[in-house]
Formats: sequence, C-alpha cells, structure tokens
Amino acid sequence: MSKVNWKGSALLSPLPVVAVTCGDMEKSNIITIAWTGIINSDPPKTYVSVRPERFSHKIISETKELCINLTPSQIIRQVDWCGVRSGRDVDKFEKTKLTKEPCTCIGCPQIAESPLTLECKVTDVISLGSHDMFICDIVSVNVDGKLLDEQGKLHLEKAGLAAYCHGEYFALGKKIGKFGFSHAKKRAQSHKR
Amino acid sequence: MSKVNWKGSALLSPLPVVAVTCGDMEKSNIITIAWTGIINSDPPKTYVSVRPERFSHKIISETKELCINLTPSQIIRQVDWCGVRSGRDVDKFEKTKLTKEPCTCIGCPQIAESPLTLECKVTDVISLGSHDMFICDIVSVNVDGKLLDEQGKLHLEKAGLAAYCHGEYFALGKKIGKFGFSHAKKRAQSHKR
Repeated sequence: MSKVNWKGSALLSPLPVVAVTCGDMEKSNIITIAWTGIINSDPPKTYVSVRPERFSHKIISETKELCINLTPSQIIRQVDWCGVRSGRDVDKFEKTKLTKEPCTCIGCPQIAESPLTLECKVTDVISLGSHDMFICDIVSVNVDGKLLDEQGKLHLEKAGLAAYCHGEYFALGKKIGKFGFSHAKKRAQSHKR
Repeated sequence: MSKVNWKGSALLSPLPVVAVTCGDMEKSNIITIAWTGIINSDPPKTYVSVRPERFSHKIISETKELCINLTPSQIIRQVDWCGVRSGRDVDKFEKTKLTKEPCTCIGCPQIAESPLTLECKVTDVISLGSHDMFICDIVSVNVDGKLLDEQGKLHLEKAGLAAYCHGEYFALGKKIGKFGFSHAKKRAQSHKR
C-alpha cells in the first residue's frame, strides 16, 4: 500500500453522531455532535466538544448539564437538521417533531425517539482552540425496554444506530465479530476494557 | 417508548475501533482502543484513554507519541487480538503479521494495512480514574492513495471501516445521508463542523 502524507487533520472515523439536548423542559435546544467519546470507564465519563459561538455552548456553560441521545437511522434526517440550524432562530423540538421527555437525574429534556440516552453533569471545561471540551460524568442512562431481552441484557445492535464517517452518515451493517472473538473465550471474558 | 433507567455507564455508541501503535521501529506495541475521539478541529486534536496498568501506557508516557491506525473490517481479527493480549508477552507485529512502516513526523511505526493513520504527539495527560487520557495534537495524516479520486478527494467510505458497539464489531453499512442533507445545499456547505 502506498500512502500519501498530509498535514494533520481531524480524520478519525467512524464516529458517533449524537443529538445533545440541553436547557430545561421549557427552554431547551438540540445540538448535533460527532466530537464525543468515552474518556473513562470507572467512573463513567464522556465529553462533548462545542464551538464557543454555538447557542448551546452558553446554555451548557450555565446549567452544567446535558443529555447525549444516541441516533438511530430512523431519525437521522431530524438530527442532521439540528446540526445545521441554530437554536437562536428556531425551537428544534417543535420543528423536528422530536418528543421532549424529562430526564431522571438532570433538568435537561431527553429525546423520546432515541433508544438510549446518557444523562451527564459537566465537571470541567477545557478550551482547546476552535472548540471547548465539556468533560462530563455520566450520571444515569435511559434505555428503551425493547432493547432488553428476558434476562435484562442489552441488545444495542437492535437499535439501528447511525455512524458518522468523513461528512457522511452510515447505518451499522454486518456484525463482524465481538470483543475477544480472536481469542479463547475464557481469557476474553476476563479482560476489562 | 418506555425507557428503563439505569445508573451511569459508558454506553456511548457506535465508537471507532482503532489500533494504536507506539514505541519505535525496533521496539513497538499495538493496543486496541475504542476510548478515542476528536476533541478539537483547529488545531486538530484527539485523545486516547488508556489504563495505567497497560504495557503501552508506559511507552506512550515516555515517548509522548502514538499513531492511530483506522481499522478496516479485513483486519478486525488481528486488531481484536491486539486488544486481548499484552505486549509484555508477545511482539504483536510479529504475531499478527501486520506490516510495520515508519511514520513521517514521529518515531512510532504505523500499520501498513490501515488505510488511514493519524500521527499524534501527546500534549497533556489527565488522570480520570480507571483511565488516563492522553490529549494529542494530530501532526500528520497518512492516507492510502487508493482512497483518493482523480481530484485528490478522499473517499473514506471505500475503506470499509469497522465500528465498535457495546462489545461487538460492525462493518459500516448503507449510506443514509451526508452532513447537511436535510437542508438547502448552500447553507449546509457554509456550516463549519
């Protein structure tokens, strides 16, 4: 393989594409984010990076709370729309017809159509240049009961989640393995991610 | 939809699954990571979160360099294997038969079979509990020439990248849209991510 060398660029892929909700049940906003990830397992921590000029940046800075709503393919059009328009001009819940529901541990709304939502409290903000990184504790999770089997095990693969890859959205396709599948079963199960 | 409420958990999905290379061309290691993401666009910054007890943690702490190798489905078995075994016990390049190639701006090797690699320099380390977060500048990118069209435009969708979702690996499936597709073309193109 012959590789071409380029200057540094934000080309990590695939990434999650999530709808982040903020504000409260009366005044809220939805911002679409791909600059997110897990940064710690125990305690569970995540981040979202947001440009300071964004409408949601001010809201999150004030309330120190946000909800990460995972995006199934069925609502990708609405979620994309929330990434293009500003909450300064429109009520995104009203325009997209996504359903506002209260969270359990924070004051933000969550999106009912999202099969799994992470309730987050901001603990730190790091300014990095174009974006500020909101570091969060994941304080609570809400899961669509339809994704649980009779033993209560989560089958997130049934959620039909979308991924973001270099400006395009993709449905998750064929399952090609599970963590540790290349190795003996016992060793794989004893390994902590 | 009726959601079940759980305690906080690292359930963000889908995530990238990348093979992080570290060390130098003689003594190197490969560690499989899903706890990674983009944290800033300009300058381009990323992170990887690594447990302090990992073999690669010491190497990265010393050299302050790492290379993020995106994973196509074709090498998911080797990359999974690198996430289960420790570099203390085995030479992972040798065992997986992945091909070691020099990077351009850092001393780490890159994986030839990876279609896109991000050369990174560590600028900060933040201890968060189970994991330490290595914050990095992306100083250089290497792209397989086959992913570029005649105009030099990158078609990353042709790389056949794998995604990580709750302990399982998936190929990216059907394209379901591109950024801004829900909106008028002009406005979408003027929007900065």
